[in-house]
Amino acid sequence: MNMYDILYKKRESQPLSQAEIAYFIQGFTRGEIPDYQASAFLMAAFINGLSPDETVELTRQMLLSGDMLDLSGIGGFTLDKHSTGGVGDKTSLVLAPLLAAAGIVVPKLSGRGLGHTGGTIDKLESIPGFQTELAMEEFLDQLRQIGVGILSASGDLAPADKALYALRDVTATVDHPSLIASSIMSKKLAVGADGILLDVKFGEGAFMKTAEDAIELSKILVDIGEKNSKQTRALISSMETPLGKAVGNSLEVREAALTLQGKGPADLQELCVQLAIHGLLMSGKCRDETEAQCRLLDLIDSGAAYEKFLDFIRFQGGDIDSLPVEKEVGVYRARSSGYVERIHSLPVAKAALICGAGRQTKADCIDPTAGILLHVQEGERVEEGDILASIFSKRENRIQEVLDYLEVAFILGERKERSPLIKGVVCREEDSIVFHPSK
Amino acid sequence: MNMYDILYKKRESQPLSQAEIAYFIQGFTRGEIPDYQASAFLMAAFINGLSPDETVELTRQMLLSGDMLDLSGIGGFTLDKHSTGGVGDKTSLVLAPLLAAAGIVVPKLSGRGLGHTGGTIDKLESIPGFQTELAMEEFLDQLRQIGVGILSASGDLAPADKALYALRDVTATVDHPSLIASSIMSKKLAVGADGILLDVKFGEGAFMKTAEDAIELSKILVDIGEKNSKQTRALISSMETPLGKAVGNSLEVREAALTLQGKGPADLQELCVQLAIHGLLMSGKCRDETEAQCRLLDLIDSGAAYEKFLDFIRFQGGDIDSLPVEKEVGVYRARSSGYVERIHSLPVAKAALICGAGRQTKADCIDPTAGILLHVQEGERVEEGDILASIFSKRENRIQEVLDYLEVAFILGERKERSPLIKGVVCREEDSIVFHPSK
Repeated sequence: MNMYDILYKKRESQPLSQAEIAYFIQGFTRGEIPDYQASAFLMAAFINGLSPDETVELTRQMLLSGDMLDLSGIGGFTLDKHSTGGVGDKTSLVLAPLLAAAGIVVPKLSGRGLGHTGGTIDKLESIPGFQTELAMEEFLDQLRQIGVGILSASGDLAPADKALYALRDVTATVDHPSLIASSIMSKKLAVGADGILLDVKFGEGAFMKTAEDAIELSKILVDIGEKNSKQTRALISSMETPLGKAVGNSLEVREAALTLQGKGPADLQELCVQLAIHGLLMSGKCRDETEAQCRLLDLIDSGAAYEKFLDFIRFQGGDIDSLPVEKEVGVYRARSSGYVERIHSLPVAKAALICGAGRQTKADCIDPTAGILLHVQEGERVEEGDILASIFSKRENRIQEVLDYLEVAFILGERKERSPLIKGVVCREEDSIVFHPSK
Repeated sequence: MNMYDILYKKRESQPLSQAEIAYFIQGFTRGEIPDYQASAFLMAAFINGLSPDETVELTRQMLLSGDMLDLSGIGGFTLDKHSTGGVGDKTSLVLAPLLAAAGIVVPKLSGRGLGHTGGTIDKLESIPGFQTELAMEEFLDQLRQIGVGILSASGDLAPADKALYALRDVTATVDHPSLIASSIMSKKLAVGADGILLDVKFGEGAFMKTAEDAIELSKILVDIGEKNSKQTRALISSMETPLGKAVGNSLEVREAALTLQGKGPADLQELCVQLAIHGLLMSGKCRDETEAQCRLLDLIDSGAAYEKFLDFIRFQGGDIDSLPVEKEVGVYRARSSGYVERIHSLPVAKAALICGAGRQTKADCIDPTAGILLHVQEGERVEEGDILASIFSKRENRIQEVLDYLEVAFILGERKERSPLIKGVVCREEDSIVFHPSK
């Protein structure tokens, strides 16, 4: 077996055996297969595609390239959650304590963000004292005690994925569903939870631009999970408009805390509850959606969900009461009266980036208090002069750029309808992977 | 402009501009575009193809990456010749002096062989004293005096092609017609002759396995040449069976010398004369094929062609009388009586390689006297026990392997027909590139 023949086969769209995929990933991980052969493979795989079997094996080999967590001593149903990312996406901060309050163990390894706003780890690090790097024994102990923990993912999980991703990033081979799916799932499988709950987003603020693309990706993700004996479901949700009202790190932590108390934006609560319903159904703790929904709303109303959030922050050393206060340096006002027909997520994200909420290169520093707080959401009535958004930043010289983006983001008019948030769910039914549209 | 966007476009089969191809080749030549991006480009180009315009520009940029010869002071019609290579292909050794005897100037830069037998340079170097590396002034002076010279191609011509070829060789992206054509033509255009005469071979002993593939490649080659204002023609010839009877370096020099005296194998003479006819037609020295053919046969019969061959060898320091004598170490005999239905070129080539006639890696040394001499050709009658081939080698311990290959090569039976040698010619007619089958 040699890499030349593997490249030849992929070039000719001939199926690769498990042994050939193993040869490639293992050789690449050991540094024996050079980057120029790996990048030729990636381009051939991108153009000619990978079959479901090839995708599953690629994922498995990337998984085997690194360490795996051992959750066997935890007890109970363990559930991992992953979002493909979006604007104002603080879902993990709400969902993890909510599920834990419902008795599900949520061991989550997250990343930092390279984009318009920070990732989950960046958001948590806006809380003074919060530790995202714990020793594994400490982390497992926390899971046993409170059922929830969020760590910064280390490079020891699926290192082959990390190295391949770096090549994809510079060879225009990132946005292929099979390559995306194998990258995500190799890291999820390394965590080793019983179930994997995916939030696959579509729309202008998401990686996948259309619902169809999100569904296609989800089917591959669920197929990989199920073929690795993990219960896997994917919710398809819209990222045409920001999720919730807060876009920025400490701003989003505040909004997550409110949502866990039933006082957050309706769309964020809806998405988190829907995701949690699927988590409960996967765990077998509830028989149907209605039962699961009642249980979850009870946990929010009773304060149990918020208590779990506070426990979780405390356990990882965070002091939520010291969350830094954002400095409002400007507002964006309605230029006319009407309904908010649309809030485009991409210009809002770019505005937040200029405020200092995200990083464009790995070396950039995030300002935890920077960001945009929307005062309205799609479908609401506004009058001329109303404040539509607040701007939080230390970069006062760049406020005009932020305002310019917000100008593009808001579309006021006469229609008052909101686009639906949740498109449906992809899951396994017997031997096939199906998409169920939302009613 | 950046390489990522160029990769993206080629991945999506979007046309690349001249500026984008220039950016890639110039950046790659300067070492600013890394191998992993170049190999991703090659794989995308291989799978999605290159348009005629892209291929012409790729060739032009590879040409511009290095030096060009200046033949302007030579005078007369200059003609370069290239063969895609085959088994027993000593055509250049015959054609170059034959054309020079007819008044055409033949400045030829050749390569060494990496394959079953040596390249033209290796064959010439079997002549004691023959110099294949002359100073350019010396070479041009020789062309002015005797109208023919063959040099070893230096790395200074089209260095971008050399670097790209090295990558193609290890990423399974060699055998694409546009990539092959741009590689060949960048080096031919660097020589700068008025005309380019191509011998494109097909069959088991050739790079192109079918006549259709050879015609497709030829059309691209001729298109590139003509778009660079060079008269270009390509003869399509069969390499199913070895060309002539000699396979090996000094053996082939001997056969070339015989052919220039009209005493060589009929197939070799036919191919060389046909190629030379096209050369004469391109030069305008003859009006039609019949006139050209008569002129060429005259040059052979009168001894003028052989005299030119001797001049050429002498001018480059070679002593043809000291050509080393090959040592026959075995023979292969007919196992039955019948007609030679087939002599497969590939096993004959492998037999010659085992004898020591070629190199498998760049570091291997060629034994100039090693090789196979066929005693018969396709269509001839043989009796059981007749010698079909002589084996020349210093590797006496490997004779059985050589015999095993020859056993596979020869097919005896009742049919006596030969497959046709020349399939036709590809040339430009007004604004299109056409294939004319042989009558």
